[in-house]
Order: sequence, then structure tokens, then C-alpha cells
Amino acid sequence: MTTLDQLIRNLTRLPGIGRKSAARIAYYLLRADRQFNADLAREIAELKERIRECSICGNYTEVDPCEICTDPRRDRSVLCVVEQSQDIQTIEATREYSGLFHVLNGVISPIDGIGPDDLTFGKLEKRISENDIAEIIIATNPTVEGDATAMYLVRMFANSGISLSRLASGLPVGGDLEYADRLTLARSIKGRIPLK
Amino acid sequence: MTTLDQLIRNLTRLPGIGRKSAARIAYYLLRADRQFNADLAREIAELKERIRECSICGNYTEVDPCEICTDPRRDRSVLCVVEQSQDIQTIEATREYSGLFHVLNGVISPIDGIGPDDLTFGKLEKRISENDIAEIIIATNPTVEGDATAMYLVRMFANSGISLSRLASGLPVGGDLEYADRLTLARSIKGRIPLK
Repeated sequence: MTTLDQLIRNLTRLPGIGRKSAARIAYYLLRADRQFNADLAREIAELKERIRECSICGNYTEVDPCEICTDPRRDRSVLCVVEQSQDIQTIEATREYSGLFHVLNGVISPIDGIGPDDLTFGKLEKRISENDIAEIIIATNPTVEGDATAMYLVRMFANSGISLSRLASGLPVGGDLEYADRLTLARSIKGRIPLK
Repeated sequence: MTTLDQLIRNLTRLPGIGRKSAARIAYYLLRADRQFNADLAREIAELKERIRECSICGNYTEVDPCEICTDPRRDRSVLCVVEQSQDIQTIEATREYSGLFHVLNGVISPIDGIGPDDLTFGKLEKRISENDIAEIIIATNPTVEGDATAMYLVRMFANSGISLSRLASGLPVGGDLEYADRLTLARSIKGRIPLK
């Protein structure tokens, strides 16, 4: 197998990259300047050396604890529980949330053999017992597994006195009733917001 | 800027990779095994050292001349002229062509300041004068620039006795008249194929 074929094959292993995209990227790299290729290669090679998981929340970070956990301006009484580290970036981009995070590192999924013990529930329980947390916002995805994981969290903290909430599901902003799928529409009816 | 942001920014420079795809790829690499990242990084870093242009046809190759130019089973009397090296792979994948290739390294495009002297026409002329070429298949894209380049080639070899042809334009196989754009449909009418 040639160098080019090998590169194209490895590129197709990346998410969202099919055979044609991989070939396009490989040919782009052949025409790109050497410095760009060298930089990109170095960044990929060093990525896992430089970035680790925050020992408190599980966020990807270059310093441990991460910048969110050590930021004195953040509300330390609210904890947002997410499935994976990148969800933190997505939520941070909204600028709507100023509390702390907790990464579960997955969702409960019996089909894939993933139970509560495979996730960071133990760490979460310890964190909550040692800190003064008033509210937990569950930000798992609105999927079967995300729902199951949310229910597990609700049961876990049912008698704790901590207020629990979950991200609202419903119509996307700027969306159109006509194009909403049945399940999303059903959820938006169930979770309808009183206006008065 | 963090390591992760830097990687994401460089990934968005690749063709077809937007901000979200770049982030997905970066997070995938964070979870991937070190060996995969190391391999991918090495392949990207070494790509331009290992692959050069064939001194005869301009194809990307690890050995010079390339495997197509030196293959004794190929028809050395037919030359297919393409815009760029990757077009060779696309044509090879059809298994419909067994002649040689010539890469122009672009198309005539006055708007971009690219004239005939910026392309490999001189090399092509020399190649044809030194070899026994009976047919030239022009495989430039069916675009304004590709058309102009094809016309230039036609004028160039008008009195050479070499037979010239161009890839047919028309309806895609499995396509639908209803969805064909006006220009493609017009071409397919103009270039209609007599059935008897």
C-alpha cells in the first residue's frame, strides 16, 4: 500500500470523513506548505500528551484542575452533568451557564454493556457529599440512553434535598412545526411553558 | 490559544471540514489510541517528503517515473489530459482507460491570472513530439475554464494529425431528467448519441 493510500485509509477512520473526503484532504495536504503539514502532524502527535482529564470534573484540560473548576467567578453551588467532555464546550458557547460541570464519560446503555459502574457516578456522589451543591442540571442527550441516565440521577439524589432539573426538549428555535419530528413535537407539548 | 483550539483551527483549513467537524475530529483523536495518532501524524509529516510528481506525466508518485508511465501493458499511443493529479485516480477507478496521462496542473483561467504558460503545455508538446501519440483524450472538467482549456488544446494540435476527443457531458447515470440542471440537459441534447 502506498503512503497516499495509507494516509487516506487512516483519514477515513476519523468521524464524518468518507473515502472521497479523505482523498480530497490527502491531495490538499500534498499541495499544502510543509510548515502547515508539520504543525498539524505535531499537534496530532502531541495531543494526548498535552491534554488530560481534569481530576475534579473530567473536562479535557492542559492544567489540572481545569480552568472552569478553578475559576473563582463561577457559581460553585450548581453542577451541570454532561455525557462527554465536548458537551462542556457546547454549553459554554451559549454563555448561559456559570456553574461547574461533571463529565459522566458516557451514558447508561445495557445494550452496549455500559452500567452505572462504568461511569463517574461514584466520583459525582463523593463530589456532592464534600461540596455544597444546591442544584444539579442534567444535560444528557434527549435519547433513550440519555433519558435512562437522567432517571438514574434523579433516583440517586431523590432524597438529597438538591434541586434537580433537565435541559428542556422541544422545537428548535427558528424551526417549523411542519418539519418537527413526532417525538420532538410530543415532548414540546408535554413540556409546554405556561405564559401566564 | 490551547493545544485543542490550535488543532481545531488547523483542521478547519482542510477542505470540507467546518468548525463542528473539526471539533468532532479533535475529540475523536483525544479518545483514539496513541498509536493511531502517531501513525496519522507521521503520515502527514512525511507525505511531501515521500511523494513527488512524476517527471513524465505529473502524477503523484513515490517512484519516478510513476507506475502508470512505466507499465508495459498500457497503451502508449493514447494520452489522457487531466487538470490535476487526483483526476488520474478517479479515471483509473473506472477501469475503462488503459492509456497514459498528462497532468496540466490547473486550467486556463484569466480571472485567476492563470495563462497557458503557467500550465504544462510545453511539456505536453515536447512529449507528443518525441513519442508516437495517436489520440489525445481531453478530460478537463465541464466548466468554463475546463472548456477554454480544451479549446486551447484543440487549437494546439489541430494540424498534428492526432485524433482529439473530450469526455462526454450529459445526464448522470441513474439520474432523472427532472433534476438535471438546464446546462447539463442542453449539453446532453447537443451531444445526443445516434442509436442507429
